[in-house]
Amino acid sequence: MRATIMHGPRDVRVETVDDPTILEPTDAIIRLAAACVCGSDLWPYRGHDHTAGPTAMGHEYAGTVVETGSAVTTVEPGQFVVGSFFASDNTCEICRSGYQSGCVHRQGIGGSQAELMRVPLADGTLVATPQTPETRHVPGLLAASDVLGTGWFAAHAAQAGPGRTVAVVGDGAVGLLGVLAARQLGAERIIAMSRHESRQNLAREFGATDIVTERGDEGVRRIKDLTNGLGAHSVIEAVGTQESMLQAVRSTRAGGHVGYVGVSHDVNLPGLELFFSHVHLHGGPAPVRQYLPELIDLILADKIDPGRVFDLTLPLDEAAEAYRAMDERRAIKVLLQP
Amino acid sequence: MRATIMHGPRDVRVETVDDPTILEPTDAIIRLAAACVCGSDLWPYRGHDHTAGPTAMGHEYAGTVVETGSAVTTVEPGQFVVGSFFASDNTCEICRSGYQSGCVHRQGIGGSQAELMRVPLADGTLVATPQTPETRHVPGLLAASDVLGTGWFAAHAAQAGPGRTVAVVGDGAVGLLGVLAARQLGAERIIAMSRHESRQNLAREFGATDIVTERGDEGVRRIKDLTNGLGAHSVIEAVGTQESMLQAVRSTRAGGHVGYVGVSHDVNLPGLELFFSHVHLHGGPAPVRQYLPELIDLILADKIDPGRVFDLTLPLDEAAEAYRAMDERRAIKVLLQP
Repeated sequence: MRATIMHGPRDVRVETVDDPTILEPTDAIIRLAAACVCGSDLWPYRGHDHTAGPTAMGHEYAGTVVETGSAVTTVEPGQFVVGSFFASDNTCEICRSGYQSGCVHRQGIGGSQAELMRVPLADGTLVATPQTPETRHVPGLLAASDVLGTGWFAAHAAQAGPGRTVAVVGDGAVGLLGVLAARQLGAERIIAMSRHESRQNLAREFGATDIVTERGDEGVRRIKDLTNGLGAHSVIEAVGTQESMLQAVRSTRAGGHVGYVGVSHDVNLPGLELFFSHVHLHGGPAPVRQYLPELIDLILADKIDPGRVFDLTLPLDEAAEAYRAMDERRAIKVLLQP
Repeated sequence: MRATIMHGPRDVRVETVDDPTILEPTDAIIRLAAACVCGSDLWPYRGHDHTAGPTAMGHEYAGTVVETGSAVTTVEPGQFVVGSFFASDNTCEICRSGYQSGCVHRQGIGGSQAELMRVPLADGTLVATPQTPETRHVPGLLAASDVLGTGWFAAHAAQAGPGRTVAVVGDGAVGLLGVLAARQLGAERIIAMSRHESRQNLAREFGATDIVTERGDEGVRRIKDLTNGLGAHSVIEAVGTQESMLQAVRSTRAGGHVGYVGVSHDVNLPGLELFFSHVHLHGGPAPVRQYLPELIDLILADKIDPGRVFDLTLPLDEAAEAYRAMDERRAIKVLLQP
């Protein structure tokens, strides 16, 4: 089959590799309906994350089950499924508390920018759709696998809701879908922080009521200006740098909530500032599995259209161009057709 | 009157100073029924916090109103009152959300290790007891002013409650009263981390079910051993150092809550570890004012006895010895009699 392999920074190639096979009785093999590049894939692409050697890329997926291991009971070949970027048993105490991405048996997912992939712990990880979805729903279901589920978690972690002003730091797919999630949760006012017109437009379409183009301290001042000097009730952080984390904390009022989902890179939070900020801080790898049934329902009922974040579609063979387009911010998120 | 002045590290003197006077129409003057030394007073005492010059010490207080400014309407001379270590208007949006210690008009309190003190924003800050309390309740009411209110906030921030295992990092007065608060909130299991016998005993008396004497990584391992390898649901951090914060975060399960109230000193939280820890982090200066009515009721009804943290009583003139006894950990908390 064809699969996307990263050989090093800025060196992404689509190559012919062996088809994946069932390794554990709890595995499933799925044929990808679509694949995509994640903002977090850009960390190794840009050399910020070290990769040990050639790495099969991709952790977002939606597709059709083609084979299951002998212990798999909840999904079967022919079913269309969506899963999360962490495989989880969905039965342990941590899973049952809603933190499947912290499952005691969790396994990372890799290799979804390909034709086929192996999904471990299939029973706990995969959620089947009621029937094979229409083609127009596939991008949204793929988004549910990570960027939507992550934005959703961030909005919950930030306690977005009725009467709340929500600020969103980061205008990548996750930040934009954080806007969508905050709107779904009933937030009164949603301030998207973005200086890119196409992203501003999509933010508005997803429910943003205000756009702030400033960043850092200037951006914080603008948020305070818009909130009686107090800061937002809820702030979604979807970047993962020191600047963006501090921007998020400083944009939040005393007693407010920061939901952070940008994978922290070189972030060190100054304890005394955090102490006196009085914010609630919660985040980490989103427990997407918790939200999948609800997200799938909303997508299939056309209540949300998260697939709108894909503003460029390429054949799988052009994965290298997909990485370049996202790296250069020419595209918000690229859909790859296997 | 007599007041406690810190002239520099380890230089505490009780001196005769002018009586405080009403400076603003919203002020009240109170005669202290008792005073005390706070763990946080040890930061400047030990030279970790810089003081600009001679400083009137003390921010915990309970006593009788002797004079009020012209704008004060809710308390009057003769009433017994308890307040918090931050004066607050109790009417702004932040106060109304329960974060009086983040009040937009908040003012620090100082000078309560004395015979008399001035309390700003008296209407918002002070809570009167139904009648003049019996002497035996005075230590508890004084504790409510800070250490009890702070332990209470920490237990709420850590979401201690039924079915939860709570670990408490720090065996000072705040940590011990965090144990008491967790018990009041119905926690199933409370693990006090302490290596001092007298503090262990008081922790048990306040409701601790387990004692862990190890610290740092070894302490974390013990907490994991006691919680099926997962960590506690709720962890109260009541120290404020890098080691104690990391001990708290690492002792908490994925999805669990850290309530931190030790004033952070030289703390820098590593972003990536925090990200993957999946904990909720909340803390800061406790909004004691929010809890005072409830705490006063519980104390006067003899449902809790937080005054037990005072294990040494000295006349105000011996304040210097009070600081020494706490610095050397000969006393958990010292009550000063003006």
